[in-house]
Amino acid sequence: MQRMGMVIGIKPDKIEEYRHLHAAVWPQVLARIARSNIRNYTIFLREPENLLFGYWEYHGTNFDADMAALSADPETQRWWTFCSPCQTPLPSRAPSEHWAMMVPVFHTG
Amino acid sequence: MQRMGMVIGIKPDKIEEYRHLHAAVWPQVLARIARSNIRNYTIFLREPENLLFGYWEYHGTNFDADMAALSADPETQRWWTFCSPCQTPLPSRAPSEHWAMMVPVFHTG
Repeated sequence: MQRMGMVIGIKPDKIEEYRHLHAAVWPQVLARIARSNIRNYTIFLREPENLLFGYWEYHGTNFDADMAALSADPETQRWWTFCSPCQTPLPSRAPSEHWAMMVPVFHTG
Repeated sequence: MQRMGMVIGIKPDKIEEYRHLHAAVWPQVLARIARSNIRNYTIFLREPENLLFGYWEYHGTNFDADMAALSADPETQRWWTFCSPCQTPLPSRAPSEHWAMMVPVFHTG
């Protein structure tokens, strides 16, 4: 299992909408996340820096393939048309990234 | 169990030192963390934004008391004399905070 952290900005005037969306994520989106072997996925918000921090545990064996399958899902793509306008990707992210991946530097427990 | 996320800045010229420290955290510091009912604790680094994100799962029933016990531990205090000079707390943090707590807005899995 691989613990992964990621970060993205959120537009301050979209925080309420983003929270509202994530209080009731569509069941097909959640199912697709699970099928891509992602478990224990939490998103945290920090204001006034307007940052979102995502944490999940990846239990699969081919992360790129699992992400590609997720990205190809029409319902997930439709979900993202609601979420993406709320977010501000970091300019420093990798070309293939929306959320910017972080590097784990410590684990215990 | 309560999933908690927190954020703090890191000084760019201290990143190597911070990583080095966290590759071999003192056993007594880890034991004190465990005794304060913190499990599955990971710290992630993001450059060039120079941010640290912490994630843990709190399994106790009195978080303030568990944090107070941790803060009162002399070995943990000594550990912090090495870590704190590497960090830049967010100006927006609460008066009692070093790391700034985040708000969970989504969970699945």
